[in-house]
Amino acid sequence: MAVQKLPDYSEKPSEWYTEIIKQAELADIRYGVKGALVFQPWSVECMELMYDFFEKDLKKRGHKNYWFPSLIPESYFQKESEHIAGFTPEVFWVEKGGNEKLEERLALRPTSETAFYTMFSLWIRSYKDLPFKTYQRANVYRYETKSTRPFLRSREFYWIETHCAFETKEEAFQSVLDDIETTKRVVFEIFGVPTIVFERPAWDKFAGAGRTFGADAITPQGRVVQQPSTHMINNHFPKVFGVKYFDKNEVEKTPFTTCYGPCISRIMASVILTHGDNKGLKFPFEIAPKQIVIIPILSEKDPNVLKKAFKFKKELEEANYRVELDDGDKRPGEKFYYWEMKGVPLRIEIGPRDLKEKKFLLYRRDTEKKVLINEKDLLKEIEKNGFELSKNLKKKAINNFDGLIKDVKNINEIKKIVGRGIARANFCSVEKDGLGCAEIIEKESGGKIRGTRIDVKENFIGNKKCVICGKKATKVVYIAKDY
Amino acid sequence: MAVQKLPDYSEKPSEWYTEIIKQAELADIRYGVKGALVFQPWSVECMELMYDFFEKDLKKRGHKNYWFPSLIPESYFQKESEHIAGFTPEVFWVEKGGNEKLEERLALRPTSETAFYTMFSLWIRSYKDLPFKTYQRANVYRYETKSTRPFLRSREFYWIETHCAFETKEEAFQSVLDDIETTKRVVFEIFGVPTIVFERPAWDKFAGAGRTFGADAITPQGRVVQQPSTHMINNHFPKVFGVKYFDKNEVEKTPFTTCYGPCISRIMASVILTHGDNKGLKFPFEIAPKQIVIIPILSEKDPNVLKKAFKFKKELEEANYRVELDDGDKRPGEKFYYWEMKGVPLRIEIGPRDLKEKKFLLYRRDTEKKVLINEKDLLKEIEKNGFELSKNLKKKAINNFDGLIKDVKNINEIKKIVGRGIARANFCSVEKDGLGCAEIIEKESGGKIRGTRIDVKENFIGNKKCVICGKKATKVVYIAKDY
Repeated sequence: MAVQKLPDYSEKPSEWYTEIIKQAELADIRYGVKGALVFQPWSVECMELMYDFFEKDLKKRGHKNYWFPSLIPESYFQKESEHIAGFTPEVFWVEKGGNEKLEERLALRPTSETAFYTMFSLWIRSYKDLPFKTYQRANVYRYETKSTRPFLRSREFYWIETHCAFETKEEAFQSVLDDIETTKRVVFEIFGVPTIVFERPAWDKFAGAGRTFGADAITPQGRVVQQPSTHMINNHFPKVFGVKYFDKNEVEKTPFTTCYGPCISRIMASVILTHGDNKGLKFPFEIAPKQIVIIPILSEKDPNVLKKAFKFKKELEEANYRVELDDGDKRPGEKFYYWEMKGVPLRIEIGPRDLKEKKFLLYRRDTEKKVLINEKDLLKEIEKNGFELSKNLKKKAINNFDGLIKDVKNINEIKKIVGRGIARANFCSVEKDGLGCAEIIEKESGGKIRGTRIDVKENFIGNKKCVICGKKATKVVYIAKDY
Repeated sequence: MAVQKLPDYSEKPSEWYTEIIKQAELADIRYGVKGALVFQPWSVECMELMYDFFEKDLKKRGHKNYWFPSLIPESYFQKESEHIAGFTPEVFWVEKGGNEKLEERLALRPTSETAFYTMFSLWIRSYKDLPFKTYQRANVYRYETKSTRPFLRSREFYWIETHCAFETKEEAFQSVLDDIETTKRVVFEIFGVPTIVFERPAWDKFAGAGRTFGADAITPQGRVVQQPSTHMINNHFPKVFGVKYFDKNEVEKTPFTTCYGPCISRIMASVILTHGDNKGLKFPFEIAPKQIVIIPILSEKDPNVLKKAFKFKKELEEANYRVELDDGDKRPGEKFYYWEMKGVPLRIEIGPRDLKEKKFLLYRRDTEKKVLINEKDLLKEIEKNGFELSKNLKKKAINNFDGLIKDVKNINEIKKIVGRGIARANFCSVEKDGLGCAEIIEKESGGKIRGTRIDVKENFIGNKKCVICGKKATKVVYIAKDY
């Protein structure tokens, strides 16, 4: 199909986002369930690669792979009060099988702590069973009342969830820090999406968590997108499920538990939003559904051009690259636009003239530049340019991030920044008593308190007073509008 | 844990099956939803590998990867009458989100024709869009009223479903034949499970199919296990969903559609049942969760033994093998039993004596023989023995299959064979009018008509009369008891 001009990304990011999802055939929103999407091959291939990178990283860290049922008995769900309160409004309930009413209602899992902890109570007996580190690749379901957006917020989404149990609080916290490292290694180093990790304020914790750490990415326009969160679970949670073990001295104890939830479909949204431009998508080389498109310039009907194109394809595929050869009827210019819009990192153009000189043109989606390459350097140049493209996308994304954080001293300054960047402010309290000030910020500016950083030692701004109530500030917080 | 003696596999196959699933930690049945299982790492790793082999094969054949929602609106479901009739008693219904009643009931997908065809009607416009070949990796849900058994029949199971549309009936049928080839390439050549493909009788077709072809595997004791099925869908089905295209002459037509459903969790059952023995599981090399276990013989406390074990592990992992090093406290004999029960194909034993001679022992799970190998031949011998083990498992399985098919001439002979093998018999009709005779067979022998073969030219047995009613036989059919 012919590429239609996309809305300007900096001016109209929302329209651009809606349109690129349609044009690049990432997902179709015309399915008959509100908030449900049909994911199409161009996004599925990328998300499958994302799953692979996460799963390899987790396995290396000693997590084992489980498949738990999607259905959770209501009785499991009702054991932990904070969890019930947080999730009950969002649960899809299965009440009938065929025409029979089920003996017990079943929840379509919105998250799986209650399922895992039920089994942990059977599997974990002794300190020798600890640490117990699991993960599963799963889709989860939440009856979202907020408006849904493709990849960003839907009623069924694709994630990985890890659930782990440890002897000591220190080990559990170390695992949380390791989760944050996994986010950096995978989401930043491979997918090119930089994030800042915030400890969320008390009112924004996972239902059942003692502490929640969420990574935030940012769009070029300055809105944040929540990325993987990791949680220290309240000790009460495993306890009510009867998860316990005997320590070295045969004393019965409750282990400390954590969970981590990289949401693959949401990370996909960040890849789209972080790297995209007015021409369309830009995939980092490692997760591109197709890494290279070969376009033979067939105008002069030289059969050797097509032959060479197939030879290149074969050679590149044998070297494990994902390659598309576009030998369709369209004009080369049209094909160029199409594959640029689809975000393919590298393009090889083979024309009759270059062919004679044993050369080809290599186009890079990030720099938009073409270079003439000797055929014999094919593999070397693809590797080099793929690597450099990903590096370049990361650099651009980091620069963007750094420029979007600004110190603020009052609500007017917050209002100016929020929606265009992240405001950094003194704040009275991130415990429950700070909620009042947070609500004022949200009401006035549309921005939310993302939390406090644990990776830097913060200096207060100016007078050390809360940006809203003027009381003594205890924390430096970050405020932004999210997607 | 110490290995407990398993029930004899030939004498008590059902008890053996239940016990090996527990001891090898393949799945835990103690989850609180009837017919739902928690799959543990030892089976999940294997099933993930199975998914990979299937997905690669399908991609090579031009199928593209989709993720469809798990929830299907009731209105989609009600469009095709045969499909409704077949599936309605088995559907789990979601009627509530949070505390709100949904506007429309949603089915947890028991299969996804109705979802795919709805989108096909939007995506397929012209003959240029055909063939349209899709697949998705998904879990599906059926409210089984029959008794459930781990991996064999559960209320949530893991499969791949392909849905395709073609211009001509011939192309569609070719795709069905290609599906059968995929089953052979993957289930037999790689997983070592031989099958015979039967066209199912009219009363045993998929609800909505014109023709159904099912592959059957067989246990060493002679009961069949249904493997991937592929279907020519009734032309009525895409029509009621408005799936249509304009052909070269701009005439509007309905495409011919097919679907294929390899059920990964069921194939896992066949891998367990086909290759297992009194010692436990036996994995083909390609799909073993761990392919090699290294056991250092540490009794003489030579630190070099453990050092060498780690060196081997590193070397083997760098060559992309899946390796376990068991340096636990148990005695070597106990470790041997444990990993044999778990079905690990190859075992490396390193003792201080062999170490001095730069040798190690290599044990094969299939032949139960040990050979002394030179260290420098490590990689070569692992590759060779892994390959030979898989070949050997296939050979054994094929021999078993061939010996279990017997010609029969009357109901008494059927009763003798069924449950111990496959009976081959003359039969009046595999259309609806043959159902009466089929029911007599099932009532008398417990066996079902698996169908007719399309890959061989069959000769009738003796007098060409139906084994039950004595009327003129039109087909040679196969009868067996299934799992």
